[in-house]
Amino acid sequence: MLKIAVLGVGRIGRMHAENIAAHPCATLAGVFDTHPQAAVEVSEKLGVTRFESAEAVFASGAVDAVLIATSTATHADFLEQAVAAGKPALCEKPIDLSLARVNACATKIAGSSVPIMLGFVRRFDDGHAAVRAAIEAGRIGTLEQVVITSRDPGLAPAAYIEVSGGIFRDMTIHDFDMARFLLGEEVTEVSATGARLVDPELMTRCGDFDTVTAVLTTASGKQAVITNSRRAVYGYDQRVEAFGSAGMAISENRPRNHMRLSGATFTDEAAPLMNFFIDRYATAFAAEIGAFVDAVEAGTPPPVGFEDGRQALILAEAAIRSVAEGRTIKISEIG
Amino acid sequence: MLKIAVLGVGRIGRMHAENIAAHPCATLAGVFDTHPQAAVEVSEKLGVTRFESAEAVFASGAVDAVLIATSTATHADFLEQAVAAGKPALCEKPIDLSLARVNACATKIAGSSVPIMLGFVRRFDDGHAAVRAAIEAGRIGTLEQVVITSRDPGLAPAAYIEVSGGIFRDMTIHDFDMARFLLGEEVTEVSATGARLVDPELMTRCGDFDTVTAVLTTASGKQAVITNSRRAVYGYDQRVEAFGSAGMAISENRPRNHMRLSGATFTDEAAPLMNFFIDRYATAFAAEIGAFVDAVEAGTPPPVGFEDGRQALILAEAAIRSVAEGRTIKISEIG
Amino acid sequence: MLKIAVLGVGRIGRMHAENIAAHPCATLAGVFDTHPQAAVEVSEKLGVTRFESAEAVFASGAVDAVLIATSTATHADFLEQAVAAGKPALCEKPIDLSLARVNACATKIAGSSVPIMLGFVRRFDDGHAAVRAAIEAGRIGTLEQVVITSRDPGLAPAAYIEVSGGIFRDMTIHDFDMARFLLGEEVTEVSATGARLVDPELMTRCGDFDTVTAVLTTASGKQAVITNSRRAVYGYDQRVEAFGSAGMAISENRPRNHMRLSGATFTDEAAPLMNFFIDRYATAFAAEIGAFVDAVEAGTPPPVGFEDGRQALILAEAAIRSVAEGRTIKISEIG
Amino acid sequence: MLKIAVLGVGRIGRMHAENIAAHPCATLAGVFDTHPQAAVEVSEKLGVTRFESAEAVFASGAVDAVLIATSTATHADFLEQAVAAGKPALCEKPIDLSLARVNACATKIAGSSVPIMLGFVRRFDDGHAAVRAAIEAGRIGTLEQVVITSRDPGLAPAAYIEVSGGIFRDMTIHDFDMARFLLGEEVTEVSATGARLVDPELMTRCGDFDTVTAVLTTASGKQAVITNSRRAVYGYDQRVEAFGSAGMAISENRPRNHMRLSGATFTDEAAPLMNFFIDRYATAFAAEIGAFVDAVEAGTPPPVGFEDGRQALILAEAAIRSVAEGRTIKISEIG
Repeated sequence: MLKIAVLGVGRIGRMHAENIAAHPCATLAGVFDTHPQAAVEVSEKLGVTRFESAEAVFASGAVDAVLIATSTATHADFLEQAVAAGKPALCEKPIDLSLARVNACATKIAGSSVPIMLGFVRRFDDGHAAVRAAIEAGRIGTLEQVVITSRDPGLAPAAYIEVSGGIFRDMTIHDFDMARFLLGEEVTEVSATGARLVDPELMTRCGDFDTVTAVLTTASGKQAVITNSRRAVYGYDQRVEAFGSAGMAISENRPRNHMRLSGATFTDEAAPLMNFFIDRYATAFAAEIGAFVDAVEAGTPPPVGFEDGRQALILAEAAIRSVAEGRTIKISEIG
Repeated sequence: MLKIAVLGVGRIGRMHAENIAAHPCATLAGVFDTHPQAAVEVSEKLGVTRFESAEAVFASGAVDAVLIATSTATHADFLEQAVAAGKPALCEKPIDLSLARVNACATKIAGSSVPIMLGFVRRFDDGHAAVRAAIEAGRIGTLEQVVITSRDPGLAPAAYIEVSGGIFRDMTIHDFDMARFLLGEEVTEVSATGARLVDPELMTRCGDFDTVTAVLTTASGKQAVITNSRRAVYGYDQRVEAFGSAGMAISENRPRNHMRLSGATFTDEAAPLMNFFIDRYATAFAAEIGAFVDAVEAGTPPPVGFEDGRQALILAEAAIRSVAEGRTIKISEIG
Repeated sequence: MLKIAVLGVGRIGRMHAENIAAHPCATLAGVFDTHPQAAVEVSEKLGVTRFESAEAVFASGAVDAVLIATSTATHADFLEQAVAAGKPALCEKPIDLSLARVNACATKIAGSSVPIMLGFVRRFDDGHAAVRAAIEAGRIGTLEQVVITSRDPGLAPAAYIEVSGGIFRDMTIHDFDMARFLLGEEVTEVSATGARLVDPELMTRCGDFDTVTAVLTTASGKQAVITNSRRAVYGYDQRVEAFGSAGMAISENRPRNHMRLSGATFTDEAAPLMNFFIDRYATAFAAEIGAFVDAVEAGTPPPVGFEDGRQALILAEAAIRSVAEGRTIKISEIG
Repeated sequence: MLKIAVLGVGRIGRMHAENIAAHPCATLAGVFDTHPQAAVEVSEKLGVTRFESAEAVFASGAVDAVLIATSTATHADFLEQAVAAGKPALCEKPIDLSLARVNACATKIAGSSVPIMLGFVRRFDDGHAAVRAAIEAGRIGTLEQVVITSRDPGLAPAAYIEVSGGIFRDMTIHDFDMARFLLGEEVTEVSATGARLVDPELMTRCGDFDTVTAVLTTASGKQAVITNSRRAVYGYDQRVEAFGSAGMAISENRPRNHMRLSGATFTDEAAPLMNFFIDRYATAFAAEIGAFVDAVEAGTPPPVGFEDGRQALILAEAAIRSVAEGRTIKISEIG
């Protein structure tokens, strides 16, 4: 049984804590949050220790590994502390909004054998994972195009948008990782567009966009096309398509239930899509914990690591620059 | 070029006439209708001869074959005349509402080599035909169950219902033929139920039903389940399912277009189903003409013949008796 | 927190135990099994008490309620003991294979206010429940036909079939309950057919069938059509359709993942269906526990009770007699 | 009855000739082809005049209008002759591969009231047209993103590719028109990528690409994303998606039949997609003729005109330059 403590028990951290508690090969070693109330609530509900500080977690002999679900600004620090303490860490994305900070962190932890896993949860979705498995099994031949549609059900609050780092670093970053997960080779060029259609005033104020596209190209010419919006009234739109020389694999959306309705003016209507990531990726989040536990127990590298987090951020930087300069950006141009 | 005359140019006959005219290996040899106006209209529109009588059609040297789309009561007579005149005939179903009349007709034409084809158009639907092809190709193993859903978009006028012969002879008869088409062996028993839910008053007055089920069994135990309603607000519901030891094949419904809509309260909504048989089976009707032409030209038996029409009527008789007597009827009990 | 003990921790009982442990408003009060090893394993895994006898469970002050997942022959006895002990019970179906025993049990517990819930888990499936909700919300108008397809992924072992009570009591009983759940009024007549297509030798030996249909009728003429097979190679086929005067609602099957594949000879292929009920109804089983807990805590009648179990068994008896006698059976003819 | 002559009776011209002959309000006034054999064959088959020259067509008093389906290089000349002769023309796309030639043609026919319609057949597809209708009816709110997937079933012969004008002018041009059809406002910027994945040797030799993407932006920020490949083994992939503030509309692909198959290792498999445009857009081609006839008869502008053809070519030029220069091209930069 791997004893995992959770740092940060907001909505996502709490879900992780419950998944750890329910995992057959893991136990929840305790929780910590800078908001004591949140930590008290979760520790009482799940009957586990509440740590008084992050330092106490890293120092504890009762903690084998940590899950970092605190605010983004603390991720890199905690990753460095986890490595220093020799505690494997599963860290929510992104590592940091600043590529410079991420690079500094990379330098600091370089050479360590402490397992670090990045929480790109979509890799563990049954549909998306089946697309990759189909590619790897050769069922679509040589991969040529990836098409990713990702639209949030509704615009996040302005307070969140303002500190999010912008849509490419905050939202598209998941799609950048999904593209890398499927493409099987590194992206060499990025071309992106950005528009302000959902909340032009807010986006203008933040220098951000709410409706974007990005086209990624690899050295061999493979293409990945990403379409994003911060608002889809019909729910959380999450589709992935992989097209190759011998076929195509598509990961489909998830309506809230499995009923189809027909009436006098329509047929075969489904419910709206699941509302957001906590529901849509519920089983993926559980599988992510399982993959982390498996990797740590087996001593193998986690399936998605620090460098994956860094590369996704590099793609975000390239996309931002592409929109600003109206041209295709070579990844080699990015720091 | 096979020269085909059409007897009866109401809505269905006219469609047949157009399909004949458009067929690359057939020409429309003329039309006849007891309502001269209908015949004039079609003959002028399509630029073909209008015959003054059915006798004139059968006597004409310019007519190679006939398509019988007149009222049901005349079908058997015209079939007998066609056989006597040596003119191959494609006859709309049913042969007659009376099994005795059908049997008499069978006796009369027995031994003739003049090709007779019955207009069970659904056999020529691309989806239903693909189900049968899948069965024949062994793709679902040994067939075990057939499930047929057939619901009209709306109740026919009372005047039609009153002379229709009842739902089993008029509507379910198509499903009985579809069951036979797919089962690949003769039905030995029929069990049916009938209800009056759409228009109880009319159905009671006619001694008819508007909502029925029928379960057919073959000697080897294969089952066919038929579900009918005289009214489906979402359109013409036409589905066929074949289940076997190695798989299942389903022929799907047809919405009016290929667009899917998502909105704030629903996703993936399609249009209502095509409204009725003229639209739904448009390509099947054209394919039916083609099959008739091919069989006559090649001198091979038409793919669906007089005996198929007779057997479907026998199943209708069995279903009617099953509802009346509340028991399973053996086909051997029917005349 | 409702403290629930589980009697019988085979595959199903163990799953129930885990669901109870995971439920936010319930705790697992302990387990009992006549096979001590099974009980030891589960009690250790979940960290709960292992009771030495069922009597000890019913006598325990630490047990608020029980979940009965023991062998069918013990259900009625345990239900009676639960009622005597004043402990609410959630009992796996069927109550008993003998209608006489069920009736005796009914008599014995008559007048008690101890909540009894029957484990007709399909009522808690999101798709099936949405169909009923659509009916209740009037979205399909007046209900007219229910069509239920239920096919097991593979034939159960002979040892199971031999003591199962036959397909109608063991398998179709779920569909009888689903029909009652959706019809909204009691069934008055049953007509059924049975065939031996999957394993004719075994079925003949047991006097059982592996491929059956049943048509249920209510006093107002509503119809429910059930199609069953003991073996579907493509997985656990579980579909429900409700058709009414204003529309149709369908609960769809569940492939094992959400990927669709296209290749040179096919398009849009999905994975096989989930293999069996533990997977297919996983969320329904959890919801079932929730409904039991809610009802007990609120003091309201459980959403599916003892009489529902009895009525479903009556429909099974009617179906068995219908096949044997080749006629429609009136429910009033049954015990 | 509008008397339409067809210039060019290769595969597409012949199909148009048959559609004209079958149209209730049009007659085929004759055919012309520089290959007399093709013209003889069609004229005999359809029983119409064979013109000896294009000049004879334009001079004929028996010809009300012309359909131009000759080789691309002749389109502009024939359009000019049609206008000079006062004969409405329906012209296959593209007007010409050279924007200069198109512009010259535009100058020459400027001011004429002779109706010119461009053969962007996809506008008449029931699914794509329903997407536009949904937009116009406000069913998806304010349009924000259009996503077009267009993949040919297989690479055209090298001889065709060599003279095609390149993928953007030959293939993507349909998608550029579809984007314009749906966006409802002019595109202001184009960003494109091109890869050589299907036949790198041929594409390198031709300076062409076989796998491309294009992202179009309008002044108000609307985005259209196009994904193309010259080869999809599963058939002719033709999908359109429109996303807006209140919903999403999708036009779906068309398998070759309506059967779905399930077996031991898969479920719900459909047939490959219709093979190519003649099949996929069969009803759209017929509807296109109808729209031309309607517009000419009513004296209203055809629904897709010369300028639409010119604008689509401008987008192709912009895409070509975008790939070459690795930057977003403003439409104002194109001649």
